[in-house]
Amino acid sequence: MRAFEDFKVGEIMEFGPVAVTAADIKSFATRFDPQPMHLDEAAQQNTILRGLFASGLHIVCMHMRLFADGVLRDSTSMGSPGVEEIRYLAPVRPGDTLTLRVEVLAARPSKSRPEMGLVNFRSHMVNADSKRVMEMTATLMFGRRPGDGRREVVPSS
Amino acid sequence: MRAFEDFKVGEIMEFGPVAVTAADIKSFATRFDPQPMHLDEAAQQNTILRGLFASGLHIVCMHMRLFADGVLRDSTSMGSPGVEEIRYLAPVRPGDTLTLRVEVLAARPSKSRPEMGLVNFRSHMVNADSKRVMEMTATLMFGRRPGDGRREVVPSS
Repeated sequence: MRAFEDFKVGEIMEFGPVAVTAADIKSFATRFDPQPMHLDEAAQQNTILRGLFASGLHIVCMHMRLFADGVLRDSTSMGSPGVEEIRYLAPVRPGDTLTLRVEVLAARPSKSRPEMGLVNFRSHMVNADSKRVMEMTATLMFGRRPGDGRREVVPSS
Repeated sequence: MRAFEDFKVGEIMEFGPVAVTAADIKSFATRFDPQPMHLDEAAQQNTILRGLFASGLHIVCMHMRLFADGVLRDSTSMGSPGVEEIRYLAPVRPGDTLTLRVEVLAARPSKSRPEMGLVNFRSHMVNADSKRVMEMTATLMFGRRPGDGRREVVPSS
């Protein structure tokens, strides 16, 4: 099980790929982002990108699932205080397959809570043409191993 | 239909509320964020927050749906280049009802694409106790009204 101490700055992890279908794109959009460009191949719209493409938040959610399966489910994950940035770089279309690449940007023990540490990740979702479609920077909290780096009572002999 | 010109800096909009059930929380988590604290009331976990609570991304997705229904579906929305920041401020629990408050922070015509403008929004999801549970700043692109603010050919007489 991964704890705070197991994330090394500069470490790069890769997960996936996950395939994206038109049904996936429309199903997500119907529930959370019902705009024509995410629902209907033939929609008349004035977007820069013609044709059906995935909601940006759908890409973020697919990224989350890959990261949860690859790292968080077998970790001391304690949740997240937030996201620093998300950039949508290229459209995700039906038939795309996406790979998640995650780099550990920074890791530091919490000052207020010695039992946990904060890890800063930069993630990219990358399509089969090696094109980055989404970039995200976010912070997660992880439990620390007992005694690691903390002040301990050393019995005097 | 709302176009770029209809967003005024300082304008505040409110949408919702939306009710959140335990089934909603688990259904989202099963699909996109399968961690114990979002799946199981009785999970043994070392989070700061005890008991079942919604995935942060689930709050973001509920926010997106309220904003799409309230603004984007009847607008000249052209998508988004990204999100500047998301902060998770308080847990969302089964039985909560959330209201979306959105402020227009900035609006400017695009330099490279005269047919569109960029609008910067700050959003809060607020629970029934008026507590902010999520804050987000994001940019969206909207089509401009024909001729508005653009150089036009004036026929000489």
